[in-house]
Amino acid sequence: MRIAFQGSPGDESETAANRAWPQATTHCVKRFEDVLTTVAKGQASHGILPVENSIDGSIHRNYDLLLEYDLPIVAETKLRVTHSLVARAGTSLAAIRKILAAPHALAQCEQFVRDLPDVEIVATFEPGSGVQLIREGNLDNTAAIAPAQAGDTPGLTVLQAGIQDYPDNVTRFILVSRNPTPLAKADKTMLAFALQNQPGALFKALSVFALRDVDVMRIESRPARDQPWDDVFYADLGAGREEIRCARAIVHLAESVRWVKTLGSFARWVEPSLDHVLGEGTRQSSQ
Amino acid sequence: MRIAFQGSPGDESETAANRAWPQATTHCVKRFEDVLTTVAKGQASHGILPVENSIDGSIHRNYDLLLEYDLPIVAETKLRVTHSLVARAGTSLAAIRKILAAPHALAQCEQFVRDLPDVEIVATFEPGSGVQLIREGNLDNTAAIAPAQAGDTPGLTVLQAGIQDYPDNVTRFILVSRNPTPLAKADKTMLAFALQNQPGALFKALSVFALRDVDVMRIESRPARDQPWDDVFYADLGAGREEIRCARAIVHLAESVRWVKTLGSFARWVEPSLDHVLGEGTRQSSQ
Repeated sequence: MRIAFQGSPGDESETAANRAWPQATTHCVKRFEDVLTTVAKGQASHGILPVENSIDGSIHRNYDLLLEYDLPIVAETKLRVTHSLVARAGTSLAAIRKILAAPHALAQCEQFVRDLPDVEIVATFEPGSGVQLIREGNLDNTAAIAPAQAGDTPGLTVLQAGIQDYPDNVTRFILVSRNPTPLAKADKTMLAFALQNQPGALFKALSVFALRDVDVMRIESRPARDQPWDDVFYADLGAGREEIRCARAIVHLAESVRWVKTLGSFARWVEPSLDHVLGEGTRQSSQ
Repeated sequence: MRIAFQGSPGDESETAANRAWPQATTHCVKRFEDVLTTVAKGQASHGILPVENSIDGSIHRNYDLLLEYDLPIVAETKLRVTHSLVARAGTSLAAIRKILAAPHALAQCEQFVRDLPDVEIVATFEPGSGVQLIREGNLDNTAAIAPAQAGDTPGLTVLQAGIQDYPDNVTRFILVSRNPTPLAKADKTMLAFALQNQPGALFKALSVFALRDVDVMRIESRPARDQPWDDVFYADLGAGREEIRCARAIVHLAESVRWVKTLGSFARWVEPSLDHVLGEGTRQSSQ
């Protein structure tokens, strides 16, 4: 199992892949689109894409890519986003005059960084490179925004942990493959569809699930763009498509919508530590 | 009319407010939450908040704020997001060695900036300050990511326009006020509601609109967080709440959901240049 991800070693996508599928190797590519072309060409068996963040919402460009490429979703996972401020051991926060950070990490820690006086912020595009520059250059008075584990590197320390603006910051990732077989028994299906342009069209569409007791766990229409007739709905169903009620509902749906596409069927992700709260027992999507 | 916005002069929120309501004055505050407290305290008559972006999706933190504060939405507007690279007149792109940019602007132009060789990127937190630093310091070999109109400043020039990664990048803003009267005749209503935790609950909820021919223009459930029973749905209805069929539908909805809140009723925004395509005649949300 070889998972392509967008970004650089140490990025959130790679961390999510490593935690969910520790037996896999990872392979970094430059753009989200490259994740899909890499898998399509067989240079990786799987690809991981972030699709939703609890603070910032859905990542529409990646939903667009799922529609564009015929690569089924075979699993999902989630990762809590945390950032720390890391510097050379012995440095104090008050001594910091320069901070190295990747643009997306910086945007997620903006309040914290804005409140520091007399600090210059320099953007780095490889998430690991801020920490690397500090280590290799023995840079004084310089810190990097990095994952907390960067503070475990000899000679470095975490000046402040959890510096992201929003504590409840969780990203959802999906795993695609050329082989549509889910990694674990599927109990969730993701669909995309476009409605006929008439009032009540959404109600009709959802009736095919309600009539068969298939739960619609999540639904979203892509924000109206300049072409309102192009709206696409994304829905997560609480059943695998091998289940006859789910398969029949999708066939029924096709009767009333302009088009429908099954993006994949897979095991729903359950946060391990919450199992006792949810009373669902131990279940892992990674097996 | 005095509109509070998050950010600094020249920010997208201020530009959106100025274009939609040119007769209004603007007032900048530090955080999104401050927009609402400023209006609640009467220090501004209105507040503007970005709630959706065509690439990045809904801005959930701002939907959360709409729920938290009792300030009705009275209008909406949209703004196309564009960024340009601006430098001193006479400078060439090849000579640039340093770029000044705000974190969010930088994140939206990441591909462009990554492809420039030997350039240091320095973050600035006031969007106008990059351009200001270049002007006041007569900085050579330095450029700023800024709105294209910054290139109209004497002594400055646009090195490259439209450098954002995605051309079709449009942000939707809502305007809140203490006075719930919409700025123009309402033909759209935004609702938030939470379902009973049972299959078919969403179908039941939507039936109240389908039965009355009230169009559901957009619907979204907030991504599952750690508490799946806390999911909130946001819906845009294609009717003002003063219309009897819409008012009755909302009363009916309250029968089957855990709670429902009307976030506001307002005139839907129509892009002026698209009026002839949509065949809807000239209509402005700003009157």
